[in-house]
Amino acid sequence: MTYPKTPRSKLKRLAERGHYDKESVHAVLDAGRIAHVGLAPDGEPVVIPVLYARMGDEIVFHGAKASRLLKYLQSGGPVCVTVTIVDGLVLARSLFEHSMNYRSAVAFGRGRLLEEAEKLAALQAISDHLLPGRWDDARRPSEKELKATTVVAVSIDEATAKIRTGGPEDNEADYNLPVWAGVVPLREVYGEPVPDKRLMSGVEVPVYIRQLPASDKP
Amino acid sequence: MTYPKTPRSKLKRLAERGHYDKESVHAVLDAGRIAHVGLAPDGEPVVIPVLYARMGDEIVFHGAKASRLLKYLQSGGPVCVTVTIVDGLVLARSLFEHSMNYRSAVAFGRGRLLEEAEKLAALQAISDHLLPGRWDDARRPSEKELKATTVVAVSIDEATAKIRTGGPEDNEADYNLPVWAGVVPLREVYGEPVPDKRLMSGVEVPVYIRQLPASDKP
Repeated sequence: MTYPKTPRSKLKRLAERGHYDKESVHAVLDAGRIAHVGLAPDGEPVVIPVLYARMGDEIVFHGAKASRLLKYLQSGGPVCVTVTIVDGLVLARSLFEHSMNYRSAVAFGRGRLLEEAEKLAALQAISDHLLPGRWDDARRPSEKELKATTVVAVSIDEATAKIRTGGPEDNEADYNLPVWAGVVPLREVYGEPVPDKRLMSGVEVPVYIRQLPASDKP
Repeated sequence: MTYPKTPRSKLKRLAERGHYDKESVHAVLDAGRIAHVGLAPDGEPVVIPVLYARMGDEIVFHGAKASRLLKYLQSGGPVCVTVTIVDGLVLARSLFEHSMNYRSAVAFGRGRLLEEAEKLAALQAISDHLLPGRWDDARRPSEKELKATTVVAVSIDEATAKIRTGGPEDNEADYNLPVWAGVVPLREVYGEPVPDKRLMSGVEVPVYIRQLPASDKP
């Protein structure tokens, strides 16, 4: 299953980095943490960072009922959702050939308001995407809290995943330069959990937090 | 010195997180790694991740001469440049009060083409932003490479920094729940450098790479 290649989604340059199959697009969306959502309500672009989750062929978002972004998303206007994961610095012998290893997904679609069961499922998906295990541990949203929250799903109508991996590629002549070349990997790690000042005594750090990839465990 | 508060740059909700002074906006831009650039060439939004650097009141970008993004940027149309740094998960007792610690900057402006000395200075700024020390070590761009590269500067006409720090804030009644609450810090770290297969023998990892914050040094 692939997303359609359209003039705006199809890569013209470095086409070998482009992937249009759903599996590749979904893998990037599932691995990211923050989406950058673009909208152009008055014809001029605005880009906002937001938490999200993918559910099938949609990307779900939540926010306060009064939020301008959520109001726009539920209006069904066109949006672009971009998720980027940086995997490393690619250091060539020439500055010109420097690059990054990364995975990005750019999706185009439109939002729709979610209610009732769909709304709750999307909130759980966002919680699970952020921190698996948390939904079953923390207090669930009350009726009042649900009413104050808007949840929308943006369709993935067109999408491209762009992925670069591997080492640098230099001009043949540059391989004789005594310049260090290679990849410096980059990744996000979790630090030591910092308990809230008013944490109830005797409450331990739960397993789903203790097992997060920590800074000293590659 | 502050950027003007306009209807689109002024935060309406959670206004205490907003900062309009240049120092705050610049600090976020200087700390980020990737910018998400929004444009709406045909009225519909597109968001692209790009390397960048801040130079004074401008944000500079580079890319291939044939790149659609760079062509648009040099045309001077309106763009939004957003940079986000995620600092931690904020885990409250209630799911509703969950949040993130983060720093983001949203800047609105227009691009202009850079040439000659400005172009070279911007390329160096992008290199220095990515990896200080690299510009003086690797081979500088040739005339031919410079010709194949477009460099633009986007003015920061309006901008907002949004910053959240600190622990969770729960409803008073929820403090009695036996749910772990607090902050789980997040940060980006560098892994062990991977030398290129064709690295000239005897070339050691340079100091400016060895001293990058590694996974086991918080």
